[in-house]
Amino acid sequence: MRQLHVELGERSYPIYIGEGLLNEVSSYFATHGISKKSPLMIVTDEKVAPLYLDAVTASLTADGYSVVSAVVASGEQSKSLANLELLVTKALEGGLDRKSAIVALGGGVVGDLAGFAAASYMRGVKFVQIPTTILAHDSSVGGKVAVNHPLAKNIIGAFHQPEFVLYDLATLQSLPEREVKAGLSEVVKHGLIWDNAFVDWCIEHAGDLVAMKPDALGYALYKGCGVKAQVVSQDEKENSLRAILNLGHTIGHALEAVAGYNELLHGEAISIGMIGSAKLGVRYGASQELLRITTLALESCGLPTRIPAHYDTEEIVAAMMHDKKFSEGTVVFVVPTEIGKVEIKPDVPVQWIREIIEELKQEG
Amino acid sequence: MRQLHVELGERSYPIYIGEGLLNEVSSYFATHGISKKSPLMIVTDEKVAPLYLDAVTASLTADGYSVVSAVVASGEQSKSLANLELLVTKALEGGLDRKSAIVALGGGVVGDLAGFAAASYMRGVKFVQIPTTILAHDSSVGGKVAVNHPLAKNIIGAFHQPEFVLYDLATLQSLPEREVKAGLSEVVKHGLIWDNAFVDWCIEHAGDLVAMKPDALGYALYKGCGVKAQVVSQDEKENSLRAILNLGHTIGHALEAVAGYNELLHGEAISIGMIGSAKLGVRYGASQELLRITTLALESCGLPTRIPAHYDTEEIVAAMMHDKKFSEGTVVFVVPTEIGKVEIKPDVPVQWIREIIEELKQEG
Ligand SMILES: NC(=O)c1ccc[n+]([C@@H]2O[C@H](COP(=O)([O-])OP(=O)(O)OC[C@H]3O[C@@H](n4cnc5c(N)ncnc54)[C@H](O)[C@@H]3O)[C@@H](O)[C@H]2O)c1
Ligand SMILES: NC(=O)c1ccc[n+]([C@@H]2O[C@H](COP(=O)([O-])OP(=O)(O)OC[C@H]3O[C@@H](n4cnc5c(N)ncnc54)[C@H](O)[C@@H]3O)[C@@H](O)[C@H]2O)c1
Ligand SMILES: [Zn+2]
Ligand SMILES: [Zn+2]
Repeated sequence: MRQLHVELGERSYPIYIGEGLLNEVSSYFATHGISKKSPLMIVTDEKVAPLYLDAVTASLTADGYSVVSAVVASGEQSKSLANLELLVTKALEGGLDRKSAIVALGGGVVGDLAGFAAASYMRGVKFVQIPTTILAHDSSVGGKVAVNHPLAKNIIGAFHQPEFVLYDLATLQSLPEREVKAGLSEVVKHGLIWDNAFVDWCIEHAGDLVAMKPDALGYALYKGCGVKAQVVSQDEKENSLRAILNLGHTIGHALEAVAGYNELLHGEAISIGMIGSAKLGVRYGASQELLRITTLALESCGLPTRIPAHYDTEEIVAAMMHDKKFSEGTVVFVVPTEIGKVEIKPDVPVQWIREIIEELKQEG
Repeated sequence: MRQLHVELGERSYPIYIGEGLLNEVSSYFATHGISKKSPLMIVTDEKVAPLYLDAVTASLTADGYSVVSAVVASGEQSKSLANLELLVTKALEGGLDRKSAIVALGGGVVGDLAGFAAASYMRGVKFVQIPTTILAHDSSVGGKVAVNHPLAKNIIGAFHQPEFVLYDLATLQSLPEREVKAGLSEVVKHGLIWDNAFVDWCIEHAGDLVAMKPDALGYALYKGCGVKAQVVSQDEKENSLRAILNLGHTIGHALEAVAGYNELLHGEAISIGMIGSAKLGVRYGASQELLRITTLALESCGLPTRIPAHYDTEEIVAAMMHDKKFSEGTVVFVVPTEIGKVEIKPDVPVQWIREIIEELKQEG
């Protein structure tokens, strides 16, 4: 088992990464002082529930925990205020009190939704992350939780750190291949913003990663979580540094919005977005090599790098203008300068982005 | 003008109390560094809007602020997730960004709703409280914000402190008499938990308070806010001391729930609840004088002290069991020991409360 530490003063917590951790899940709850007197609520989705909910519940109840569960539909649409209300109903009916914990068992959707429920139920109860997707190596670390609004993604949320993150690599084996690839997008992102040697490693081991070889996967997720943990430790509330984690997300979120949150997976959308960011980097003077390596890393992982031709450029730009990374009317963008390094540019001309979106469509 | 300070480290803020402050509202925004580059959103209700929205908007726009406003229905039902969604829609349409502020102009309903919107929009933007009811001397200080769920009041929320509280006493003159009395309930509460001389003062000046004499009102609200500020400074997140502010609220919230949040006003419900708490205090050994003075203070302010006979006792008890002040299955209760002093009892028998509810009905 590998272990990482997210340093946030009194909100610090560990990330446990290993094979088969789910079987001994209750011991982690006990170690972290989660009370057995107050009911827990496990939040999961309808695909994950049949696979892993029984195992988690069995381990917890065998150890004296009382457990309520809530199963939502699978997919981005579940990150809604309607589901927040549903979770609160279940929590109240299940008797959850201020010492209870809410547990996310699933991907980033379940993590973001359950996390916002934990942040707001009774103005905040304990939260535990049990990620079951590759993408969730990113979403489960750092405490950003949220639901969507019809006009914008992740716009209603909070910062609410988990007590611990328990990452059982064995659960990843049941992921559909498309989800595996989409998850690798954020792994590559963590290399692109922080660690160029790790980007090289990803290119070299892309085949093993897509094939879900346990050794490669374990190392990649350990590295990815490690970058995330370091960034978050330095800037929990995204006052400055943390914004680098949004590489590819400004265009990516806009693509998701235009696609109605179901045609493109989050990881696919930001893969395209990161190509866009690399193109922007080149416009600002970075070498063509930056774009070449970025494209190679993402393509090796089987990720899309082009915008489907039928997407409307102006619709994408309009969706971007609703995005929360625009502050005081200026367009903020995370721009790579070389592999492993990015900068926050506060004043990127919208016209440049419009042109890059066009390029991303035409080469498709 | 009187001024108080809520000491909370980097989240500290002032409370300004005086006549006519609304006319110079923009100067307070400027003093507190609220950016003119990002739009503000004023949240108010349909009764307050025609009275004060124009004045506030005019002062702000004259000074270069750009202002969006959202008007919700008047009443407790407006503290809903549906209205949270509506406010976020308005905020997005109005172009609010991470440097924007959301401003509550109204009573506790608007304050709690707008505050939760400010806490969760983009994971938290600045918040300003401009209370316009007497009750809001309580709700506008301390950072508790929330919406209701059909099964429980204030169950979905956050701690989100305002940048400042601007309390213009002139706005209170338009309050209906019933709202005046209901608001005095929390004023009396602040005496009952903290300051027995202030309870005597309230009894002596109850006539002036109900008649809204400016001098008496100004002093009472200054004292009430002062007690609230001191308690919150010592325990922002309600780990211990802050729970004393819930005097009368366990029974009070249950009464509001049973009445469907519209028959009884919040202040009326907690007035009855405080009589119940005084009765409990007597059972635990306090003198009858405690019950007599509590009753006198509340009755002098024209507040109800009995439960309407048609309320079902078991329904009230059931509503209490959903209340968030029950931790780990035990019944927590704020119990007065003498005027100006209360204790938190973690283990009050539900049967005692049932008996007290019966008494409160029979004497009605
Ligand atoms: N909070 C953050 O910091 C953060 C960071 C990145 C992404 N996110 C969010 O994460 C979400 C995307 O996360 P995701 O890709 O994990 O999506 P997801 O939760 O929808 O999971 C993807 C799919 O895989 C299924 N699934 C999950 N685990 C499985 C398993 N072990 N076996 C088989 N199927 C499984 C799910 O049912 C779903 O159909 C987005 O909403 C995004 O906004 C949040
Ligand atoms: N957050 C906290 O710490 C806290 C503390 C106490 C109470 N509360 C909450 O506060 C709410 C009750 O507050 P409230 O009593 O102010 O209710 P409210 O906001 O509903 O206001 C009462 C009524 O007065 C009207 N009104 C407001 N200002 C007016 C004015 N100046 N002139 C004429 N009419 C005016 C309103 O439209 C409403 O009809 C409850 O929801 C309660 O849960 C919160
Ligand atoms: Zn992402
Ligand atoms: Zn109250």
